[in-house]
Amino acid sequence: MTTLDDCRALDAHDPLRPLRGHFQLPDGVIYLDGNSLGVMPAAAPARIAEVVAQEWGTDLIRSWNSASWFDLPQRLGDQLAPLIGAGQGEVVCTDSTSINLYKVLSAALNIAREDAPGRRRIVSERSNFPTDLYIAEGLCRERGLELVLVEPEEIADALTADVAVLMLTHVNYRTGAMHDMAAVTAAAHAQGILCVWDLAHSAGAVPVDLRGAGADFSIGCGYKYLNGGPGAPAFVWVHPRHAGRFWQPLSGWWGHAAPFAFTPDYQPAPGIARYLCGTQPIISLSALQCGLDVFTAAQPLGGMQALRAKSLALTDLFIRLVEERCAGHGLGLATPREHARRGSQVCLTRDEGQGVDGHGSGAYAIVQALIARGVIGDFRKGDGGQGPHKDILRFGFTPLYLGFEDVWNAVEHLRDVLEGGEWRRSEFNQQHAVT
Amino acid sequence: MTTLDDCRALDAHDPLRPLRGHFQLPDGVIYLDGNSLGVMPAAAPARIAEVVAQEWGTDLIRSWNSASWFDLPQRLGDQLAPLIGAGQGEVVCTDSTSINLYKVLSAALNIAREDAPGRRRIVSERSNFPTDLYIAEGLCRERGLELVLVEPEEIADALTADVAVLMLTHVNYRTGAMHDMAAVTAAAHAQGILCVWDLAHSAGAVPVDLRGAGADFSIGCGYKYLNGGPGAPAFVWVHPRHAGRFWQPLSGWWGHAAPFAFTPDYQPAPGIARYLCGTQPIISLSALQCGLDVFTAAQPLGGMQALRAKSLALTDLFIRLVEERCAGHGLGLATPREHARRGSQVCLTRDEGQGVDGHGSGAYAIVQALIARGVIGDFRKGDGGQGPHKDILRFGFTPLYLGFEDVWNAVEHLRDVLEGGEWRRSEFNQQHAVT
Repeated sequence: MTTLDDCRALDAHDPLRPLRGHFQLPDGVIYLDGNSLGVMPAAAPARIAEVVAQEWGTDLIRSWNSASWFDLPQRLGDQLAPLIGAGQGEVVCTDSTSINLYKVLSAALNIAREDAPGRRRIVSERSNFPTDLYIAEGLCRERGLELVLVEPEEIADALTADVAVLMLTHVNYRTGAMHDMAAVTAAAHAQGILCVWDLAHSAGAVPVDLRGAGADFSIGCGYKYLNGGPGAPAFVWVHPRHAGRFWQPLSGWWGHAAPFAFTPDYQPAPGIARYLCGTQPIISLSALQCGLDVFTAAQPLGGMQALRAKSLALTDLFIRLVEERCAGHGLGLATPREHARRGSQVCLTRDEGQGVDGHGSGAYAIVQALIARGVIGDFRKGDGGQGPHKDILRFGFTPLYLGFEDVWNAVEHLRDVLEGGEWRRSEFNQQHAVT
Repeated sequence: MTTLDDCRALDAHDPLRPLRGHFQLPDGVIYLDGNSLGVMPAAAPARIAEVVAQEWGTDLIRSWNSASWFDLPQRLGDQLAPLIGAGQGEVVCTDSTSINLYKVLSAALNIAREDAPGRRRIVSERSNFPTDLYIAEGLCRERGLELVLVEPEEIADALTADVAVLMLTHVNYRTGAMHDMAAVTAAAHAQGILCVWDLAHSAGAVPVDLRGAGADFSIGCGYKYLNGGPGAPAFVWVHPRHAGRFWQPLSGWWGHAAPFAFTPDYQPAPGIARYLCGTQPIISLSALQCGLDVFTAAQPLGGMQALRAKSLALTDLFIRLVEERCAGHGLGLATPREHARRGSQVCLTRDEGQGVDGHGSGAYAIVQALIARGVIGDFRKGDGGQGPHKDILRFGFTPLYLGFEDVWNAVEHLRDVLEGGEWRRSEFNQQHAVT
């Protein structure tokens, strides 16, 4: 059996422990929701205050030159690139994940229309993050294409000669299951299908090698594992073999070849810069930079490989402790045990009928009771017994700031909530909007 | 002749003078570039610090509920609505101007496709703000439509039976000339043409009555006269008669009818909420709120009507002083003298051949020399004598924080720069990127 002392010993020997000091963790909180909104880097308040007071307040319009606002999306993209296996000059940080997906999916469809006009389908997973499906649905509606949704095990069979694009999220938001990006991309390419990868739950969470996998397009989120702040700008990567081939349809001034020439006709900038559109929220971009700076600081400590090793150790420990200490309370495991298939989160399930008076699963109430104790994870609703998706208690593990004792303490709280029946209290069972 | 004492007397009797205290004006600067990037509201640093430290740093994911992040685009939209003649629940603050234009232009084209499928043209002004033209060009390319660009005096004749949408910027960014929104909209509607209005240089600068003019769609900028901070989120308004009719193509989770239900299919929210897409930059949105708060504070002092009266008095004074005190230096006036046709800026011209050694107009160097003296306006390049557009010295007048003595002092600096020949110095003649 694992003990608290074992966990403390792991923290004492953790070479990444100093990174915790780069964050301002709220008092009394064990934060297992960095996959929804990352913790604030300690440098963020001062940096943002400087941008506000100096760049906006004092320098005003002169900051376009003195603070190089115009290059900021590229500078942040270059800083992010090593985390996702992209080259310098291949990534920009901009807009939202949904909007960036619209850009790359449009570009991918344009390429397919030119190279293989008979291909009229986009394939994705039914349990992909909903906003990805909404964007694809909108584009299919606009262009008269078909969106085909399948279960993960059906993907291989769905890669048929009428498919233009395979659009997947690398790590599933509900289960933490991770695709083998290289293998799936190769299978799609073998059928002449382009691959769009959403890295929302991957960038900063697991090592990603877009170039190595031969991926075509990728987008991802700035406010989850990258710790860029609420609604931080997202990012977009396009393989250089595609980047210059088409305009994306959101052809605004920031993506123009000569943005300050104010010519009436659009000439796209070379490469990834054409994936920029309108004026970017400079204050929010500056916050994102603070998040990326922590990854730069992690580089001499082993970077993403070291972070991955710790992440797996944390999620392994969490799974083991839940099984050792919370047995008999109807919890299941939705996340793959196999390391190669696991992201940086652990999702537990409860069956329907285990809630108060046999209603629902009780998962929502357990999460609420944990939050009341300062252990912040989140709840993802299942299909209420109508399909394969159970209610989920979701816990994200950010190796930058979480320790092994945190994991022990989180499981102790979970055990207390379950054993004492605290989750049955009515205050925890009133469901309202959760994100 | 107008005197400095006259100007001081005007300030002394200005009922809007207290509003200046709502801004933090940089020392030694007369800021005539609020039409490019508005000055920082004095409340902004503390409010942003609070959002960063409390909402992000401490409350983290719980702020979706405790700080009502989800409603923020609508709350800001409701606060902005009175400035543009929109109703409550009709406006959202979100994304960039270019992206919002893509949304409304797509929706307008969808309506036209259904109601009048033979209409295959978008009409706009050749001197419209370039990014608007780029977005329209992209949509035309995607849909096989034609973008027709005309001069302002040619608009009426261009409103033919094959036109789907008339897309105009209400106040021209280069000249400050303002369209009669109601008359132009009526003329377009008489021909069955939908109207999209860009309010980038109007919102917060001149009274706008979208509902009264019967406009169809509108978008605008948060970081110019609304003082929302660098790259502040923009806004979008759709007349209720259209708002529920189509999805816009950027159909992300934030515009879903049940955004937290995580269903795989897209169901648009009723009304303007469907013009939201992905997760918004909360810190930048919060800065925009500080800008809008100043307009709320201006309401008891007479609101937009009082601001408009002062704006016209400021621009009248500037024109008069330039003509009285800077005569003989080759300056012309690009901005209409007629109040009904003038926005809140004054644009001066210089003819080609008046620059150093007869090269160019010298306008760029004059603007640089003024900036070196702390008088910040900006330069907009003309067509170098190849067409009707001269080089422009552009000065924006924000009645919220500018006084009449500021105008006097700005013109004194301009006179000194011209009379002393200071602008001829080589340091002011090295042109580089300006925004």
